[in-house]
Amino acid sequence: MAREITERKENYSHWYLDIVQKAGLADHSAVRGCMVIKPYGFAIWENMKEILDKKFKETGHSNAYFPIFIPKSFLSKEAQHVEGFAKECAIVTHHRLKNNPDGSGLMVDPDARLEEELIVRPTSETIIWNTYRDWIQSYRDLPLLINQWANVVRWELRTRPFLRTAEFLWQEGHTAHATREEAIREAELIHDIYASFAEEYMAMPVIKGTKTENERFAGAEETYTIEALMQDGRALQAGTSHFLGQNFAKAFDVKFLTDQNSEEFVWATSWGVSTRLVGGLIMTHSDDSGLVIPPRLAPVHVVIIPIPKPDTQLMEVAEKIKRELEGSNLKVNIDEDERKRPGFKFAEYEMKGVPVRMGIGKRDLEKNVVEIARRDTGEKYIISLDRAATFVVNLLEEIQQNLLERARNFRKDHTNYVENITEFKKVLEEQGGFIYAHWDGSMETENAIKEETKATIRCIPMNGNKEEGKCVYSGKSSKQRVVFAKAY
Amino acid sequence: MAREITERKENYSHWYLDIVQKAGLADHSAVRGCMVIKPYGFAIWENMKEILDKKFKETGHSNAYFPIFIPKSFLSKEAQHVEGFAKECAIVTHHRLKNNPDGSGLMVDPDARLEEELIVRPTSETIIWNTYRDWIQSYRDLPLLINQWANVVRWELRTRPFLRTAEFLWQEGHTAHATREEAIREAELIHDIYASFAEEYMAMPVIKGTKTENERFAGAEETYTIEALMQDGRALQAGTSHFLGQNFAKAFDVKFLTDQNSEEFVWATSWGVSTRLVGGLIMTHSDDSGLVIPPRLAPVHVVIIPIPKPDTQLMEVAEKIKRELEGSNLKVNIDEDERKRPGFKFAEYEMKGVPVRMGIGKRDLEKNVVEIARRDTGEKYIISLDRAATFVVNLLEEIQQNLLERARNFRKDHTNYVENITEFKKVLEEQGGFIYAHWDGSMETENAIKEETKATIRCIPMNGNKEEGKCVYSGKSSKQRVVFAKAY
Repeated sequence: MAREITERKENYSHWYLDIVQKAGLADHSAVRGCMVIKPYGFAIWENMKEILDKKFKETGHSNAYFPIFIPKSFLSKEAQHVEGFAKECAIVTHHRLKNNPDGSGLMVDPDARLEEELIVRPTSETIIWNTYRDWIQSYRDLPLLINQWANVVRWELRTRPFLRTAEFLWQEGHTAHATREEAIREAELIHDIYASFAEEYMAMPVIKGTKTENERFAGAEETYTIEALMQDGRALQAGTSHFLGQNFAKAFDVKFLTDQNSEEFVWATSWGVSTRLVGGLIMTHSDDSGLVIPPRLAPVHVVIIPIPKPDTQLMEVAEKIKRELEGSNLKVNIDEDERKRPGFKFAEYEMKGVPVRMGIGKRDLEKNVVEIARRDTGEKYIISLDRAATFVVNLLEEIQQNLLERARNFRKDHTNYVENITEFKKVLEEQGGFIYAHWDGSMETENAIKEETKATIRCIPMNGNKEEGKCVYSGKSSKQRVVFAKAY
Repeated sequence: MAREITERKENYSHWYLDIVQKAGLADHSAVRGCMVIKPYGFAIWENMKEILDKKFKETGHSNAYFPIFIPKSFLSKEAQHVEGFAKECAIVTHHRLKNNPDGSGLMVDPDARLEEELIVRPTSETIIWNTYRDWIQSYRDLPLLINQWANVVRWELRTRPFLRTAEFLWQEGHTAHATREEAIREAELIHDIYASFAEEYMAMPVIKGTKTENERFAGAEETYTIEALMQDGRALQAGTSHFLGQNFAKAFDVKFLTDQNSEEFVWATSWGVSTRLVGGLIMTHSDDSGLVIPPRLAPVHVVIIPIPKPDTQLMEVAEKIKRELEGSNLKVNIDEDERKRPGFKFAEYEMKGVPVRMGIGKRDLEKNVVEIARRDTGEKYIISLDRAATFVVNLLEEIQQNLLERARNFRKDHTNYVENITEFKKVLEEQGGFIYAHWDGSMETENAIKEETKATIRCIPMNGNKEEGKCVYSGKSSKQRVVFAKAY
């Protein structure tokens, strides 16, 4: 069964869908654009959540929960927000069903129309800032550092599991500050947390930068982003952190008394990452044999397979190693299924991306050794029984580092500096990837390049070389290169 | 500020709302019937979640996530389910907003009407069983033990924070089994988990029992419930676990191949507890000075207050004790605010229900002692500095036990055995509480008693005496006493 997936070079998009399905990550649902996140896929998200939640709490944030519904009028209050957002959304108009008099089932009760329609939150700035008006009176109430883990709905036309779905899960931070500087520091702090999470846990290297005005979050003064590169040469926006200025405070009239006794509008940030990260994880590491998961996010670190099949002696050894590994905080499965052959099991766990497989064979046991295979490279090792657990612990760390290294090399190989639009188009067509090019800073040029090439400015990178140059498109002067790519 | 709450004897319902607001647990929102769960209230729910999630996983359950929307037609498929449920709900009819041509803001785009309306899930049996049809083919796919942490919406007319809100947070388990017996065992296992969680963590004693047909979950063959008693003599249904028979499998055509190669419908359970538990927690323990939280669920276990105000010496001692307590896995706050007097702080933490308060006073320090106060009884202890941490650890355990004991005594004092309807009404009116009475088992009698007294059968208790007798209402024969109460 396990082998039947499309190869990446054949059709990357089919390959992706095959991985999602055959590794048991998600499933279609009866509701257009909404997926079911299956236990194995959800376990990856839970691991991400746990790590991020800890980082947010360590930096002083608390979780809270705001209503899923937003009164329609709220969405009109912040002008840019409504322009750039919130048109395609799920709208609740009624609050009661009744039995259809024709006996055909249920119908919407026309007498139960809401006075004002409610929007299923596409993001929560409006309802939250409407609440913050009551919570913030004085500088003593600031900063207010709140995060929410929630589901949101955006009525997307083209959906793809994890990457773009009508409903998705995310966290959204919404903070309030007394000064512009403090709010910017907050947005940058979260940007750093996102970037280090992507690299240290997801083994997914990212470019840190800011968005152009065009690509900014609707209502933000600055959007910080982390941009990752997928194996097909497309970029994935993996997390954004917004400095919102006083826009939402003004829209919802949230003022505070400063320590100088004057009244000022509050400064804001918002920031989020979503189940989209699971899609990024898949497309950064997986291969034609299935999913590859970095150990730090793997729901199962090690699977132990008794060969040719479980018996008392093999199970005894397996249980002993399992306990040892669990002592190092690893999650271990022993596959006791007697109906499947080892070869079938190997393929199955390869598909599911379990980082390390340990085969305990009858004959190997006579020599006091086990066979250990790593998922990332497929390499196998024959290791003596008493060293096996220590070996696995170190191997997992090596796999984690190797995945990051490999992804960095891939990105390096798919990053180009181009000097004119001909080169730009050539590179984009032949290889994709990140293109560092000079840009004159105008929205016209940005739009023209997008129109002609489908590539967008992923970010104005924050680190590295700020050399001046000439715009690849207009030839006008440019202060620094920006990063272009076709994006998910 | 802190003292201004209604006394319980004056108006229990106002007292409850005062606690919710002044302890910072929840707030009203701009959306009718929806609350905002504030950080302090949410932290209690997070603690509950963490403990329950661990218990579910230890017993073999995995988390997953299903869509928030349910196609309208799904709700008609299980006949009892639709009858007893799902009429008052949030209905999504459109998927796009547009700018109103009159310039007044946003309007629903009439061209974006959904072909089939979507219901915001009031519970997920239907969408989940529609999915299980694809997941279950053979006995090898069973049991399927899945839980989901999610938000649900029921368009309640009268709402009250935590106890009954239009949107609430919960977990819903949905399991599939090969045999009736196994499904019943699952429903009972969860019933046990709920009951032990209520007693061991919430310090809230519960009666375990089953619901009458009348009070059963719509679509269930048996509903197991835990029923707690609130301080005003009303019962709170705190958690339910349902044996669903094959009802949903039949409605959604979920069959499996048995190990005997025959085809059968799958057996099901579902079970849930919600943010309602936070309401139950409040009404079990709190008093006229504010919230009381059992230590095992408290977001903060100990608050340390330097007296009269923080200085280098006091802070040094406070930090040292804090580190000691944190070493015992306790959460500790030091209140360093220089603007508030100690008395004010005392009242504030009393209001917030922090189980232990430690005052570190200038003069006490000369004698090498601190003052420790417990929230449940208000008792104070002068303890030598070097014993303080150990004393607090033990005291927290004692508080946990005392709260359970106190709640048990309250319940005992508010439980009555009555033999006729006159007595029944007298007890109900004068004292409320749980009434153990004989019932003839008929729905007519059950409804008549409800009509006349507003008391319902909370459960048919599972433990205890099964003595026969005569129905308090009809005089007909009865196999055992059942538990009546007015309920939330």
